[in-house]
Amino acid sequence: MNTNEVLTKEISGIAASNGIAIAKAFRLENQELKVEKKAVTNVDQEVVRFEQALESSKRELEKIKEHASQTIGEDKAEIFEAHLLVLNDPELISQIKDKIQAQHFNAEFALQEVVDMFVSMFEALDNEYMRERAADIRDVAKRILSHLLGVTIPNPSLISEEVIIIAEDLTPSDTAQLNRQFVKGFTTNIGGRTSHSAIMARSMEIPAVVGTKTVMAEIENGDVVILDGLDGKVIVNPTDEEVKEYNAKKDAYEEQKAEWAKLVHEQTTTKDGEHVELAANIGNPEDLKGVLENGGEGVGLYRTEFLYMGRTQLPTEEEQFAAFKAVLEGMEGKPVVIRTLDIGGDKELPYLDLPKEMNPFLGFRAIRLCLEMQDMFRVQLRALLRASIYGNLKIMFPMIATLDEFRSAKALLEQEKQKLLSEGQQVAGKIELGIMVEIPSTAILADQFAKEVDFFSIGTNDLIQYTMAADRMNQRVSYLYQPYSPSILRLVKMVIDAAHAEGKWAGMCGEMAGDETAIPLLLGLGLDEFSMSATSILKARSQILRLSKTEMKNLAEKALQMKTTDEVIEAVKETIK
Amino acid sequence: MNTNEVLTKEISGIAASNGIAIAKAFRLENQELKVEKKAVTNVDQEVVRFEQALESSKRELEKIKEHASQTIGEDKAEIFEAHLLVLNDPELISQIKDKIQAQHFNAEFALQEVVDMFVSMFEALDNEYMRERAADIRDVAKRILSHLLGVTIPNPSLISEEVIIIAEDLTPSDTAQLNRQFVKGFTTNIGGRTSHSAIMARSMEIPAVVGTKTVMAEIENGDVVILDGLDGKVIVNPTDEEVKEYNAKKDAYEEQKAEWAKLVHEQTTTKDGEHVELAANIGNPEDLKGVLENGGEGVGLYRTEFLYMGRTQLPTEEEQFAAFKAVLEGMEGKPVVIRTLDIGGDKELPYLDLPKEMNPFLGFRAIRLCLEMQDMFRVQLRALLRASIYGNLKIMFPMIATLDEFRSAKALLEQEKQKLLSEGQQVAGKIELGIMVEIPSTAILADQFAKEVDFFSIGTNDLIQYTMAADRMNQRVSYLYQPYSPSILRLVKMVIDAAHAEGKWAGMCGEMAGDETAIPLLLGLGLDEFSMSATSILKARSQILRLSKTEMKNLAEKALQMKTTDEVIEAVKETIK
Repeated sequence: MNTNEVLTKEISGIAASNGIAIAKAFRLENQELKVEKKAVTNVDQEVVRFEQALESSKRELEKIKEHASQTIGEDKAEIFEAHLLVLNDPELISQIKDKIQAQHFNAEFALQEVVDMFVSMFEALDNEYMRERAADIRDVAKRILSHLLGVTIPNPSLISEEVIIIAEDLTPSDTAQLNRQFVKGFTTNIGGRTSHSAIMARSMEIPAVVGTKTVMAEIENGDVVILDGLDGKVIVNPTDEEVKEYNAKKDAYEEQKAEWAKLVHEQTTTKDGEHVELAANIGNPEDLKGVLENGGEGVGLYRTEFLYMGRTQLPTEEEQFAAFKAVLEGMEGKPVVIRTLDIGGDKELPYLDLPKEMNPFLGFRAIRLCLEMQDMFRVQLRALLRASIYGNLKIMFPMIATLDEFRSAKALLEQEKQKLLSEGQQVAGKIELGIMVEIPSTAILADQFAKEVDFFSIGTNDLIQYTMAADRMNQRVSYLYQPYSPSILRLVKMVIDAAHAEGKWAGMCGEMAGDETAIPLLLGLGLDEFSMSATSILKARSQILRLSKTEMKNLAEKALQMKTTDEVIEAVKETIK
Repeated sequence: MNTNEVLTKEISGIAASNGIAIAKAFRLENQELKVEKKAVTNVDQEVVRFEQALESSKRELEKIKEHASQTIGEDKAEIFEAHLLVLNDPELISQIKDKIQAQHFNAEFALQEVVDMFVSMFEALDNEYMRERAADIRDVAKRILSHLLGVTIPNPSLISEEVIIIAEDLTPSDTAQLNRQFVKGFTTNIGGRTSHSAIMARSMEIPAVVGTKTVMAEIENGDVVILDGLDGKVIVNPTDEEVKEYNAKKDAYEEQKAEWAKLVHEQTTTKDGEHVELAANIGNPEDLKGVLENGGEGVGLYRTEFLYMGRTQLPTEEEQFAAFKAVLEGMEGKPVVIRTLDIGGDKELPYLDLPKEMNPFLGFRAIRLCLEMQDMFRVQLRALLRASIYGNLKIMFPMIATLDEFRSAKALLEQEKQKLLSEGQQVAGKIELGIMVEIPSTAILADQFAKEVDFFSIGTNDLIQYTMAADRMNQRVSYLYQPYSPSILRLVKMVIDAAHAEGKWAGMCGEMAGDETAIPLLLGLGLDEFSMSATSILKARSQILRLSKTEMKNLAEKALQMKTTDEVIEAVKETIK
């Protein structure tokens, strides 16, 4: 590219994190580390060389981890804890040393052979969690290799001027090293809205555009770049006019955010005076900070499975109790819905050694598994009961398909409660017991369930995929993942009406609850609680303040009688435009 | 075992095929064929030896096939066609010869090595169809090996006295060789209700008890055996009393069957004079004989995917036309519902090379695939349209989740119809166009669908598994496969009511339609057409003749307001006892 002749280019991608940034491009290039296969004569010396590379990698990782905890937070820095675990994995290390000693390979080649084997083994397992482990191993192997080869791998934590990162993709350790002070956003060739880097960008609250396919080919170091994370656009070497335009767009967005920020302590009340509750979905106690900063009126879904992941054995009762207590105390009496363990499906725990299933989404997971592995389940129930006195706890069971399952789970909870009381432990007098409604059967029978449960929380991600019989992770059928389908709205209505008929409440904790096209419909259907990612709360509140519940009720009634998703979307647009 | 001291024993198993038989035991033992690894010096001679064994196997198979067509029917004998295809598979044969020529292995060892590789490759594919191919290859390999080793493998077609077969398991070729004249039933150590041997027994109409685990250990050749295929029991060396008791039970069953047989030409009308239609599910034109013999009033489901299976390329328009025409003509003006191609999920076609999916039951299958692979789909639509003039054709699309999908499929059919007409071909004036209702979304929106489709056929196997979010093939969640759940009954009611409101008809072609606990409920809900396996029709007719629709309506209304499956089953029992 001729740098004298500056060309303006516009590249499209997937809007992965909101916001607009204008800065110089910084290409984060991952050098190809070339491995040659050699025969070594002094095997012991080669093992020592490998051990030295391991040690250097460890020291480097410790440093990055420390830096990351300071700049991006403890919890995000935990990825490096996982990397250090890989470095200390005796299985991996001994196999590499064996290869050097038994086959006289050079350390680089031995490392690569063993790592490739591990990675392909993990990737073949065809589940998200193990693929992430494969990514960790690859990431660590690259670090060791760079030390063996004496090559420096780029260290984004050293960036000290305002930039927009351009990369093929960002590995977990790349993103963890990004310093928010200088990194104003990033754009990548690959990835989607739910890829690791996209999630990271949203939690760092910097704009990101992913899946562009071409940014690495089209952007040079130092090019001025406008990153439009609202509309998924990247403009390279913009004209003065464009810079002006996007600065205005940025200001408008910042202004809007500032407006939203004013709503932190506001009630969520419609134009015609109806109150609804906006709560947050969280994965661990560290997420509470974001919930409170964004004005969450409660926790609508605490996913306890993260307590069980990224470790080698089950968490103890004490560990779980501590986490639940922290969340309940942190929310200072606001409602906290804790969901019991939801594993299986795409979320595996290697140490449970569950059988591989042909259709894991229709398989042995969540409450199905907990009712069979009762020893494990009882530990969690005890931890919940003991924590109940520290706040406003509501317990929710996932994947309930029949009343029998709910009754069994409730009976186990009651047994553990009696045991605790007889041991002299304290347990809150009344704990609301609810269920996730994420299986069509349960929505259809909601009137019967409502007589026995205290509340419902609709899990739209699963409910939609089962109702449409379409795996939401499968691109070939993703056109069938239709949250606004009249059939989904009818199920939602059945659940809400059933709850209200028995004086109970109905919430929603799927992605749909924070979606601006869905909110008017859900409000009209009478939803009581909307639980979403913390960063969506203020925007949703701002929207609800402007809506009239009566009008939305009319909209919803019309939508229930429509034939297709497109008709519904059209009607919502017409109504709220 | 001391043969002087005759012990009566009772062994339990899975009732796989109805009826009772009393006869002497015939153990069908598969000798272990031992393969030694040897180095051969005269490689060419070894190849010739292999080719001779191939030839002998071919001649033997041809003979068995001919015998089987005469004794058990053309269609059942087709398994040997598949075996002959394996024998002629150039890939397989050339790899074995290569192994002999390049590595100087003896033919036996080369055969075993290559076959093991193919078998484990197919078995790893984790789908029913390919596992059957693996079984075929293993079966054929055994035959070749027996010729190489000069060992005779047992030939059940030579049995010439009345026996009950005792076996570890029965291979496809074992069952195909059973001569109904002498083989009165069989019992095996392994297998379940849907295993190949069980299906074969039902189509041969001989009793079978499978999955006993111990019959091979506990029964000797010549032991007298009572086989109770009604209750899943095997009694070895029965007392005179037991023989008397079971002869009476057998007579009662035969009498019942004779009573049913009288109903072949009867109408299916309830006690209070309401008519419903009992139709049959078929897989190919050969099944028509059974449909007519069992008094089927139509074909409620013709599964066209068998036209696409067990071959190496797509069937031509002519082949499909011939099959459709044969079925329409064979049914002599009675209604024939032909379902368009339903592959994907657990039914793969190797030659289409579809991507492996994480949850195939929620994946790219049936109409989803046909709407994308339009060239393939149009060929089938043309064959259907051309055949339409030969009988009473109704076309049905599978796995419809949205009205958009139905409209797209209908538009393609309309296009092909116009093309055919412009080419001067004949097409029936009016062809009813319906959909399978097997996705919850479609049942919930049935009122909207009913305005555009001509009929519904409820596919309960899939509808239940999606509604309960439980893979029906997965044993760990099979307790959730609950056809009588009030939620399923509510969906069925939505579909039937929606059809009737628009003057359309609603049928059912899942297993539930022929189930004696379900029939009273379905009758009460107003189902118009019940489509089931041909052998269930007369029993169902006999049941319906004894029921009152008004009473069943009351039963169904109560069931719709129940909380659990157990309550529903109890209520049905109370009502029809």
